[in-house]
Amino acid sequence: TVQHLFKQIFKASLDLQKVSSQKTLLVSRKQKSEDTVVQIDDVKIGAAGHPQMFVGPCSVESLDQVRQVAAAVKEQGLFILRGGAFKPRTSPYDFQGLGVEGLKILRQAGDEFGLKVISEIVTPGDIEVAVEYLDMIQIGARNMQNFELLKAAGKVDKPVLLKRGLSATIEEFIYAAEYILANGNTNVILCERGIRTYERATRNTLDISAVPILKQETHLPVIVDVTHSTGRRDLLLPTARAALAIGADGVMVEVHPDPETALSDAKQQINIPQFREFMSELKGTKIASV
Amino acid sequence: TVQHLFKQIFKASLDLQKVSSQKTLLVSRKQKSEDTVVQIDDVKIGAAGHPQMFVGPCSVESLDQVRQVAAAVKEQGLFILRGGAFKPRTSPYDFQGLGVEGLKILRQAGDEFGLKVISEIVTPGDIEVAVEYLDMIQIGARNMQNFELLKAAGKVDKPVLLKRGLSATIEEFIYAAEYILANGNTNVILCERGIRTYERATRNTLDISAVPILKQETHLPVIVDVTHSTGRRDLLLPTARAALAIGADGVMVEVHPDPETALSDAKQQINIPQFREFMSELKGTKIASV
Amino acid sequence: TVQHLFKQIFKASLDLQKVSSQKTLLVSRKQKSEDTVVQIDDVKIGAAGHPQMFVGPCSVESLDQVRQVAAAVKEQGLFILRGGAFKPRTSPYDFQGLGVEGLKILRQAGDEFGLKVISEIVTPGDIEVAVEYLDMIQIGARNMQNFELLKAAGKVDKPVLLKRGLSATIEEFIYAAEYILANGNTNVILCERGIRTYERATRNTLDISAVPILKQETHLPVIVDVTHSTGRRDLLLPTARAALAIGADGVMVEVHPDPETALSDAKQQINIPQFREFMSELKGTKIASV
Amino acid sequence: TVQHLFKQIFKASLDLQKVSSQKTLLVSRKQKSEDTVVQIDDVKIGAAGHPQMFVGPCSVESLDQVRQVAAAVKEQGLFILRGGAFKPRTSPYDFQGLGVEGLKILRQAGDEFGLKVISEIVTPGDIEVAVEYLDMIQIGARNMQNFELLKAAGKVDKPVLLKRGLSATIEEFIYAAEYILANGNTNVILCERGIRTYERATRNTLDISAVPILKQETHLPVIVDVTHSTGRRDLLLPTARAALAIGADGVMVEVHPDPETALSDAKQQINIPQFREFMSELKGTKIASV
Repeated sequence: TVQHLFKQIFKASLDLQKVSSQKTLLVSRKQKSEDTVVQIDDVKIGAAGHPQMFVGPCSVESLDQVRQVAAAVKEQGLFILRGGAFKPRTSPYDFQGLGVEGLKILRQAGDEFGLKVISEIVTPGDIEVAVEYLDMIQIGARNMQNFELLKAAGKVDKPVLLKRGLSATIEEFIYAAEYILANGNTNVILCERGIRTYERATRNTLDISAVPILKQETHLPVIVDVTHSTGRRDLLLPTARAALAIGADGVMVEVHPDPETALSDAKQQINIPQFREFMSELKGTKIASV
Repeated sequence: TVQHLFKQIFKASLDLQKVSSQKTLLVSRKQKSEDTVVQIDDVKIGAAGHPQMFVGPCSVESLDQVRQVAAAVKEQGLFILRGGAFKPRTSPYDFQGLGVEGLKILRQAGDEFGLKVISEIVTPGDIEVAVEYLDMIQIGARNMQNFELLKAAGKVDKPVLLKRGLSATIEEFIYAAEYILANGNTNVILCERGIRTYERATRNTLDISAVPILKQETHLPVIVDVTHSTGRRDLLLPTARAALAIGADGVMVEVHPDPETALSDAKQQINIPQFREFMSELKGTKIASV
Repeated sequence: TVQHLFKQIFKASLDLQKVSSQKTLLVSRKQKSEDTVVQIDDVKIGAAGHPQMFVGPCSVESLDQVRQVAAAVKEQGLFILRGGAFKPRTSPYDFQGLGVEGLKILRQAGDEFGLKVISEIVTPGDIEVAVEYLDMIQIGARNMQNFELLKAAGKVDKPVLLKRGLSATIEEFIYAAEYILANGNTNVILCERGIRTYERATRNTLDISAVPILKQETHLPVIVDVTHSTGRRDLLLPTARAALAIGADGVMVEVHPDPETALSDAKQQINIPQFREFMSELKGTKIASV
Repeated sequence: TVQHLFKQIFKASLDLQKVSSQKTLLVSRKQKSEDTVVQIDDVKIGAAGHPQMFVGPCSVESLDQVRQVAAAVKEQGLFILRGGAFKPRTSPYDFQGLGVEGLKILRQAGDEFGLKVISEIVTPGDIEVAVEYLDMIQIGARNMQNFELLKAAGKVDKPVLLKRGLSATIEEFIYAAEYILANGNTNVILCERGIRTYERATRNTLDISAVPILKQETHLPVIVDVTHSTGRRDLLLPTARAALAIGADGVMVEVHPDPETALSDAKQQINIPQFREFMSELKGTKIASV
């Protein structure tokens, strides 16, 4: 009917408006066509052809523990050390992280080995102390839509690594990043870390297609957390290979000197010899030609 | 092999330990067999056979708007008025709520019509002002694992309505509630509000089975948000009927004097005449006998 | 841009066409506004206010087993007996059902107790023998998009109970039913049986909202399989109550004289005393008034 | 309690049994450690370091159409031509394929260009005619648990390409393959084609981790269908790169001389120049070194 046709035209106009509003998102490639390269001193994240590794234990447990991993990271010629100090845990009775003490340990190990350090913050109140000790701030999957935290992170002058929510759509992920840019901070790194599906062979389902989509839709660096995507040591290497092949700007992997005794994520971290093996294999990746 | 058998026995022992730790969760029925009834003056939530309605607009937009809904709530002989003041929105460019001004409007309308008022808070920093104006605090789906917010809510002496996360498991939902109880606040109401699935006929998929499971596993009141579960006006009544039939302690439904002009969730709110019709039909529900 | 606007108008026209093609689906309420009532002799499925129970063991195992259940069904004043003869099983090494022998047992027990019998068929080749012994044919979740089977079922003059696929959308479910009607058989009953989601507290997630949606969109009877939706005995009664409250035309529940020894689905079937209790409770369902 | 402990030990023993039964699956690497290489004349699928491309239109529409694609496949030095003749379609009113006529066209084009041909069959009754014209038989996602079809495919002496179901677990996928081997046919190729999740940026979510898991758990070749996984032309190249990097034995991609006029899947097929570009880019894939 004609009435219906007009209704459809009206809806089409609305969609048009929506499309044009999307064009103006600060994160959008339509807004800025060249890649954003996040730089901390001479370490660059997002430079084409130069992916970065983000390596470290799930939780900071002691200076000794972190130093061992930092030495291994340095040994591999890498630049970035990760470690959790404020840990979001499903149960209130699980280890909740060392807090500020953990940040200090991370800083100390970073300084000793010349590494940039990154750790997660979980509430706006953490930010002030976090920027004092960290080179980059991580916002975790459970807080991807903690909008007050995003706004707060948008107001600091440290790069922010934003993880995709447990069941966030790519569109929601992009809007979450927009919260940070809209508050003034343009140094944002996106991290695909697997989504929640019915499949239980892996802890989450790595949505590898999200990488090229995010690279197309935004100008931000995109990395892949192979540890949380899979939750399986035996899949870290193959998924890291896939991540690099598909164009990710980096890979995050959890390494612990003694995973069996880890206070969190004991099953999915690799130890230092396994990490050396992982790096060696990853560097030697060859793609079979069709 | 014998070695394997011993490994299994060891694992079984671990599981045993896990089971016994679950027994000690403060939210667990094993810990407290009788139902928790949350009481605000003479309004009781969780009293067997007396479900409560949680009614109001998605967002508080003006005193006039809220007063209209409050009058309709009062007219139906109901006791609880809801309205969003701090709105978690996917896009930073969407209406973010009136903030404290919204809380004041809600309080004023509540006082005028003798209703208890509830609104969502989204960050620990909101709590102090929220408890000043509200009778109950809501923690929304996106913040179900905002653990610092849960801890903060555990320290106030107002009841907390906790919504299930967008893709939270029932187990994670229970642990989130445990964070509040573990911090001292035992007045917690659980709210099933649909989970994210592949199905698009509804905004979310109402997991109706979660109601009896939560009632069995915990001693807390359990309500169902039919608005966000379905995102469809035409499904509010049938799902509210199902919620009551399955034993929910209440139903949340969004009502707006003029949904078409609403600043959020325009498509799924009902207007006041529709609300009267909804209540009339709901009160008249009859179950066909098999 | 104008170009874009025209593109949108064009798309709107396409959508219009799609909408009008949907109007002509044979299953659609727009095609036929009154409810389809499937009738087998004097047993009616889909008559408003008269829901039917579909009761019986997961698998037909012996005449004695089926007779015991049939007697219990009769005792409750019910009319329909179900039982699996051709069993679709995940593993080729699991019990695959008694086949034609199972159909004969079902027929014999049905005749003895005056019950209508229904069983699943899994391939077009089964149909000829199935119609000989059965009053209704079931097409299971795994075969919802086995289109050759749907076409074959569309050509017989027995009612077909079609289960929703494990992760079928409601739209796909409707189109699957359309295959049957399009081939000439208008006696189709739709069965919601839970969908696959990330949640593991239940075997599947009962999508209770699908019932009113299917009732609105189609003129076909809609029932709920509470056994496969939940996979838990303790949830059969509450979900059956929700199903009836939301307007389902029937409930399917699996009953076995000795579930522990059942050759399939041992964990989720109820025994005969539990079934009596279930029926007694279900008949006595009262909805608390708000 | 001791009683509980014994129960757990009993359960552990059951699990043990289950584990040992899994060891004996015919598809398992524990049963056969070396890779299965499926060979058709001199074309090998599953030979380490030699991935194969499976290329062709979604539906066979005419000899001319198939010949154009076949020429392009040959031009690229590839060996396998695909095309749908029996099409499983959501709606009964959509194009259902050319049937046997389609198989003949495929055979003719295959013979002319020296290519091996593969097409889907959807019901056991198709098999006899299919083996007459095809080199490989495909069982599609919707029929992954059409067990009678699997059994029938297990009895022919042509290789079978089995696609993962729309929301099949990896375990169910493995068991589906076992149905074919258990019936005598050991030439089975597994195809990951994306799973159904909440994400809508892609048609399905490519579960790239399934590739290494299937390679570890089974000895069968594993390929990736990048067309159905993503449903987006712009993602075919990046996902094909990821598939090869992670160790897939091949990639399936749909090519049509004029996708806009295609009778099915118009939006996701690429045309012949795009295919040439795709192949050129894919052959030139370089992985950035970390």
